[in-house]
Amino acid sequence: MIEQQLPFALRDEEELSVDLIEAQYALKNSKDKNNAKSLVILVSGIELAGKGEAVKQLREWVDPRYLRVKADPPCLFTTKQSFWQPYARHIPSEGQIQIFFGNWYSDLLSTAMHVSKPLDETMFDTYVENMRTFEQDLKNNHVDVIKVWFDLPWKSLQKRLDSMDSSEQRWHKLMGLDWRNKKQYDTVQKLRQRFTDDWYVIDCDDAVARDQQFAQYVLQALKKLPKHKTSVRTKWKQAAVPEALQQPATDELDKDQYKDELKKLTKKVSEALRNDSRNVVITFEGMDAAGKGGAIKRIVKNLDPREYEIYTIAAPEQYELRRPYLWRFWTKLQPEEKISIFDRTWYGRVLVERIEGFAKPAEWQRAYDEINRFEKDLVDNQTVLVKFWLAISKEEQEARFKAREQTPHKRFKITPEDWRNRGHWDEYLNAAADMFERTDTEYAPWHIVATNDKYSARIQVLKAILKQLKAD
Amino acid sequence: MIEQQLPFALRDEEELSVDLIEAQYALKNSKDKNNAKSLVILVSGIELAGKGEAVKQLREWVDPRYLRVKADPPCLFTTKQSFWQPYARHIPSEGQIQIFFGNWYSDLLSTAMHVSKPLDETMFDTYVENMRTFEQDLKNNHVDVIKVWFDLPWKSLQKRLDSMDSSEQRWHKLMGLDWRNKKQYDTVQKLRQRFTDDWYVIDCDDAVARDQQFAQYVLQALKKLPKHKTSVRTKWKQAAVPEALQQPATDELDKDQYKDELKKLTKKVSEALRNDSRNVVITFEGMDAAGKGGAIKRIVKNLDPREYEIYTIAAPEQYELRRPYLWRFWTKLQPEEKISIFDRTWYGRVLVERIEGFAKPAEWQRAYDEINRFEKDLVDNQTVLVKFWLAISKEEQEARFKAREQTPHKRFKITPEDWRNRGHWDEYLNAAADMFERTDTEYAPWHIVATNDKYSARIQVLKAILKQLKAD
Repeated sequence: MIEQQLPFALRDEEELSVDLIEAQYALKNSKDKNNAKSLVILVSGIELAGKGEAVKQLREWVDPRYLRVKADPPCLFTTKQSFWQPYARHIPSEGQIQIFFGNWYSDLLSTAMHVSKPLDETMFDTYVENMRTFEQDLKNNHVDVIKVWFDLPWKSLQKRLDSMDSSEQRWHKLMGLDWRNKKQYDTVQKLRQRFTDDWYVIDCDDAVARDQQFAQYVLQALKKLPKHKTSVRTKWKQAAVPEALQQPATDELDKDQYKDELKKLTKKVSEALRNDSRNVVITFEGMDAAGKGGAIKRIVKNLDPREYEIYTIAAPEQYELRRPYLWRFWTKLQPEEKISIFDRTWYGRVLVERIEGFAKPAEWQRAYDEINRFEKDLVDNQTVLVKFWLAISKEEQEARFKAREQTPHKRFKITPEDWRNRGHWDEYLNAAADMFERTDTEYAPWHIVATNDKYSARIQVLKAILKQLKAD
Repeated sequence: MIEQQLPFALRDEEELSVDLIEAQYALKNSKDKNNAKSLVILVSGIELAGKGEAVKQLREWVDPRYLRVKADPPCLFTTKQSFWQPYARHIPSEGQIQIFFGNWYSDLLSTAMHVSKPLDETMFDTYVENMRTFEQDLKNNHVDVIKVWFDLPWKSLQKRLDSMDSSEQRWHKLMGLDWRNKKQYDTVQKLRQRFTDDWYVIDCDDAVARDQQFAQYVLQALKKLPKHKTSVRTKWKQAAVPEALQQPATDELDKDQYKDELKKLTKKVSEALRNDSRNVVITFEGMDAAGKGGAIKRIVKNLDPREYEIYTIAAPEQYELRRPYLWRFWTKLQPEEKISIFDRTWYGRVLVERIEGFAKPAEWQRAYDEINRFEKDLVDNQTVLVKFWLAISKEEQEARFKAREQTPHKRFKITPEDWRNRGHWDEYLNAAADMFERTDTEYAPWHIVATNDKYSARIQVLKAILKQLKAD
């Protein structure tokens, strides 16, 4: 890749403004349509190059109401959250434009410049690679990303520092680095060249050209409203349904033995969860009535409700549908949440959404890799991810549905939709098979637990948690 | 008020559970209807009294998917945010139930117990009064609030501490106070009695009775789904429309003089905004084309886009409509945001929503006081609130509409809706008059600025900001 070029000539400001506004409105009106997208603009550069001024000028040319600007102090990388986590909440909704001054690259630069033990080049490059992959995932999910580096030669920078007035100086000091230090300047330049080869780099010696180059580049991005890819060329290779799903084991556990084991295990599990220095995310998928609720109950048995959070995942809301489908999980998984339990998960994309057609083939087929990367990011940032599929037989499900309909305090658990889903039994098995084949990773393995016998299922779930936490 | 009583008898657990689930589903299904509400449950009490256990038991009796639990470490009061700000984001949506372990009362207790300079009783009581008022506002906006204090005598507490195992001790230490200290225990009891007279107080010596009392109290609250009040008895007294709106001044400013003054003032304003230790919120209301955008542009002229946030307020989204109408402003006004500018505001409630009938008479008539309290909370917490009404004449508006239609880069600013709103001109004037009469407070005064002459309007806006910041 090379730094992006754009044939550039100064344009009449009013015409440029009209073009920008029209493109902005076309973007805005794409919302909920088949060419909808949002636009993220990452803005970084040398201090005093004038990224602030360029954004301000852009804001004057466009309709400022539909151009959001986010600026945060640099967020140094820790091992507790992925580079995208501080920004996830602000990923724009279809039709919106969001500028990020503070962004994952400026955080990377700050981290590389600031930590006592600096990042080595390999680590730096690995971050850059992950960032690019993340951006590609955003693009595939209709969040376009453009990146602009505002560059300024050393001499011009020094001249601008000389002529700055005091109130402005205060503001610029906030940004952290000492821009009077030539060595530091050179380091920034050297480092940023490790990632700016797919950026649009603007030489900012001339303010008018700078503002126009920036605006014209944004205009070019605004104008692209490509049709969403929905179909795929290659034929889908269906994985074989594992025996564990076809014929879930029916080993029964004696009730007394169950009670004894349960007591010991729930205690052990709560201690293991508490004592693990990492965050723990436990997820459940499986057919209706497979016993997700019952299993969750036993996991939290000895925990205080303040120690964990249960997320029940239903159909997404409209404002969630206007963002990448993983977005509602990005925003839920906060680094400060020690124990999170998910009753249904992001795998809905390749299960219910695939089967019901809410996700098009291109979307769900792409999702396996996206999910793997998402999970890897979590695990790389001190999270243990324990994934369960509760496997029940079709006969046992029917028996449980009927029993629920007979039991007053369980009746609420059964709806016509459950019976309808049951009609898609084989499709769900196939979707689950594909899911295991593609997302059973070393860092986030699947646990398939047979649940025809509830007692044995709960015991197995607890044991699997202990095993994965290495606390067994 | 006295501590709430409930005729209490142990019930069959299964029957209680069925009742709870049914009531929970009725609440859930009230969403978007005329009896919709959500329920906030504030839970506080003596350590080890068992509020955690009671909530856990409740979660087992209800459908846990629709009962959210929020627990945060105590958030000590600062002068930078109002007591409700840390919780605003979690105020539940219609149909939802939200338990707050950490809540404004536990924060008040922690603040009173922890600060080096303790709260005096008057201040403590003022907080309690404000909290009750806030809760009443929530209730009026269909967020029901119930409060439960889990009490435990000193001796029982000590016995429980004796028998606690070590892993649990760690968890309980997190809560901050030393529960072995009798003096501290007594202080907590004395303090909490200053606010628990409208709480449901449960004696927690008996765990079974405790859990049932709690669940039965919640059930009682769930069952109440009162019809929303929409009409009012008393006749509305329309305020007289101020001359400044009837006949906005038309003093014209010479262009050269304007340019000179503007240059000086924008500089002064940016410095004043930066140097003020408080947060500044500047809000704009006024007829379409009155020049809100132009005024905002001049305010931010010398600011960096990273220093401020502009909020453009359009019609609320569905998920916002399911919460109190101020909610979307509560969540926007974050203490860390130094300069916020609103292009249209919460006054939409008493302007467009009143005129278009989106708010019923009982709702918009109540809103003036609610808004005043909201603004007072902001101002009490180190925020300067500068409110503008831009006053334009009907003729000048028409001229600007027509000019906009002729100017390519302004065409986007004019829509059929603008012409339609113009048809309600007099109603808007009346609504504005009522608004001034009721919300022009000492702590958040209105500035009515005549805008038939744009130049003079912009100068006046800048001067008014300086004046209110005492920087002129």
